[in-house]
Amino acid sequence: MTAAQYLESNKQKFLDELFELLRIPSISADTAYKGDVEAAAFYIKDKLIAAGADKVEICPTAGNPIVYGEKIIDPNLPTVLVYGHYDVQPAVPLELWDTPPFEPTIRATEVHPNGAIFARGACDDKGQVYMHVKAFEIMMATGTLACNVKFMIEGEEEVGSTNLGPFCIANKERLKADVVLISDTSIIANDTPSIDCGLRGLSYVEVEVTGPNRDLHSGVYGGAVANPINILAKMIASMHDDKNHITIPGFYDKVLELSAAERAEINKAPFNLEEYKKDLGIGDVWGEEGFNVLERTGIRPTLDCNGIWGGYIGEGAKTVLPSKAFAKISMRLVPNQDSHSITELFQKHFESIAPAGVKVVVKPHHGGEPVVTPIDSKAYLAAEKAMETTYGKKPIPTRGGGSIPIVALFERELGLKSVLMGFGLDSDALHSPNEHYGLFNYYKGIETITYFFQYFAAK
Amino acid sequence: MTAAQYLESNKQKFLDELFELLRIPSISADTAYKGDVEAAAFYIKDKLIAAGADKVEICPTAGNPIVYGEKIIDPNLPTVLVYGHYDVQPAVPLELWDTPPFEPTIRATEVHPNGAIFARGACDDKGQVYMHVKAFEIMMATGTLACNVKFMIEGEEEVGSTNLGPFCIANKERLKADVVLISDTSIIANDTPSIDCGLRGLSYVEVEVTGPNRDLHSGVYGGAVANPINILAKMIASMHDDKNHITIPGFYDKVLELSAAERAEINKAPFNLEEYKKDLGIGDVWGEEGFNVLERTGIRPTLDCNGIWGGYIGEGAKTVLPSKAFAKISMRLVPNQDSHSITELFQKHFESIAPAGVKVVVKPHHGGEPVVTPIDSKAYLAAEKAMETTYGKKPIPTRGGGSIPIVALFERELGLKSVLMGFGLDSDALHSPNEHYGLFNYYKGIETITYFFQYFAAK
Repeated sequence: MTAAQYLESNKQKFLDELFELLRIPSISADTAYKGDVEAAAFYIKDKLIAAGADKVEICPTAGNPIVYGEKIIDPNLPTVLVYGHYDVQPAVPLELWDTPPFEPTIRATEVHPNGAIFARGACDDKGQVYMHVKAFEIMMATGTLACNVKFMIEGEEEVGSTNLGPFCIANKERLKADVVLISDTSIIANDTPSIDCGLRGLSYVEVEVTGPNRDLHSGVYGGAVANPINILAKMIASMHDDKNHITIPGFYDKVLELSAAERAEINKAPFNLEEYKKDLGIGDVWGEEGFNVLERTGIRPTLDCNGIWGGYIGEGAKTVLPSKAFAKISMRLVPNQDSHSITELFQKHFESIAPAGVKVVVKPHHGGEPVVTPIDSKAYLAAEKAMETTYGKKPIPTRGGGSIPIVALFERELGLKSVLMGFGLDSDALHSPNEHYGLFNYYKGIETITYFFQYFAAK
Repeated sequence: MTAAQYLESNKQKFLDELFELLRIPSISADTAYKGDVEAAAFYIKDKLIAAGADKVEICPTAGNPIVYGEKIIDPNLPTVLVYGHYDVQPAVPLELWDTPPFEPTIRATEVHPNGAIFARGACDDKGQVYMHVKAFEIMMATGTLACNVKFMIEGEEEVGSTNLGPFCIANKERLKADVVLISDTSIIANDTPSIDCGLRGLSYVEVEVTGPNRDLHSGVYGGAVANPINILAKMIASMHDDKNHITIPGFYDKVLELSAAERAEINKAPFNLEEYKKDLGIGDVWGEEGFNVLERTGIRPTLDCNGIWGGYIGEGAKTVLPSKAFAKISMRLVPNQDSHSITELFQKHFESIAPAGVKVVVKPHHGGEPVVTPIDSKAYLAAEKAMETTYGKKPIPTRGGGSIPIVALFERELGLKSVLMGFGLDSDALHSPNEHYGLFNYYKGIETITYFFQYFAAK
């Protein structure tokens, strides 16, 4: 049986198994789901074993476990280290999901006329990581695995991969490989394949502003006591100037400015501003003066509030002058900014702009480094050829806005470059209610991965 | 038996009854407590009947009912209309209460060494309104009621008294009186009695800022799409200039500027800035340039956020660029601003400053008009003399920062002036966790009210 025949006759099974994985609410940001996170790890482990992997193991860490497995067919052949994550983003706000986030269902959409799987993690990253497990099963079952493979599937990607670095350091020998292959990014469209070759880094902090030592009656005290919500709003507002530059001193010092030629390269990607605005339902785009949308999301750093809360947020009215207000703030970073320094700059600046009437605390969450991956390596060329084979078109190299902090980590700790061969779409509502992943993308991904191994193993 | 003897021998009973009332969570802002709100109305009704009131009735309105009762001893004698409210503020955040908000307990505090009752509504306004019911019982039981009395106790004060206006208009004859007596304000300290003679008005709005039509991945879209939290922060920040003046065009047009003599009068109230800061745990006060704390809270309008929310507010980190952000914003008003016009000015301004990338909706909640009450009326002088009798000191006339919108309403609809003879303390944590009311204040209030009736009835 050929690989293509095996895939064709196992489509329903591959889908049923993914559904089972998607039903496990493995939310890493909330410790209440600790048991589910572990259940997802065990599910991946079982399927790797069933597909024929050796030395499969649930490796404990200080946080969530990492699933490892490998198949060494010949030590003289190249080795691909497949990375992915089985944890998912929180599913709130639940009321905005058309179907429950952990009860996967298939529905057609405009860009997925043949149906898409709706569930938290459908695309990010359970759907994409599971393609690798199934591609491996195909190659094992049909005797077409052409080189060695190692799997490292973690459970803390959505909370900063805190324990992956120590794991890599402690397992350098075991993780030896020639390249890391990751499917956790997007293509431009189902008829326009692309490969991400630049990723933004991330600094993520939580801030707390405290005014009076207790909630106050806004009538009795209002006007004489600094209101932490108003102050927090003022502080957040001051983080951008009127050209939407970020005002933290030193923030742009290490930003790599691209040449006109490099900017022109980026702007070759197909982009339609009117469609972009229509898709998002916005009257206009917004951002740093002097850059367009592709540049703002690809090569420029940002500062966004991801959450804010304080005071009375229930039904009706309460005339309270609250004691505290909070915000979660993240900054996307570009080469050569580094997450640790930017977090420090933020902290220093945020504390310095707090007026006398309040106290502020800045708590760093997690970070990740920006990276640029090569587009002339053997692995990149194998991925390019694999996509050209399955899509009938050469993929476009793009700069992605998201962060996969582990790419920098692999380079630093394992000396390995990565190839980001992802298959999702930006419109798949990653991190949002109604996340989904096209059936077309799921099966096309599995097929493309088998070609990648074939081309990468070739002399 | 004298009034004083009756009070002395019924202290425990008066306390037990108040506890029973405080156990009813009559939160008017949240419709989930509708049944409790009604239970509180019935409790007041029963106690008025038991004390000897006539024509006691639960009067339905479009919202929560109003309890009415009266005792006309002689149509030729003056009539006091007692107003109060049996509804309370929400009790959230519950985790900041040392004891549950609806299980009253007594504990001593620094300013209440003889004990204070801790419960939501202990002071605002169940404790204070119930003093009137018990003062009435005393006067009835001891044959000392010296003039007529009518009670109008409502259940929507904390949500803007929406249905009190229509009730007053529809019951003008029944509500005929010579003065309205209200205990819903504070004195300066337990050894420094005072009477509020100015109250700020209120405009309360809720705003919603919508950016993209769905929550987005902040890595993929961040930097190119207006983030509604950042925009809301910018809009809120812009509502005050660098002198903390409010920037809404026309906002100050009708503000009554006080003369130097009037400002001097207000500044006669005892005030210690260091103690004020220490009590609130703040490094400095804050507010409009050119005014001190007493002026900022007494004679100047304000704009405060009472609540804000948007994006991910759970544990950990979520890199979301949210679709929506919300805030509850209230403005305290002074003579001669009016609530309706200020709400309109806010709405117009807020809509005008929204950038193209977002849509905003402003939803007015409730409002109330600012008032100044006379300090030379027969009723004010009776209150002054009553306090002088029980406290041994003449009360100081003060300008309060809070809003009791119904004072303007009574003037407009019933042609009646009010006397604001309250007995709480600003430090009693009204609208806050651990609200409390001194036992000293509760009994002193009951005693003072009986004297008020005596002096007011005197020729």
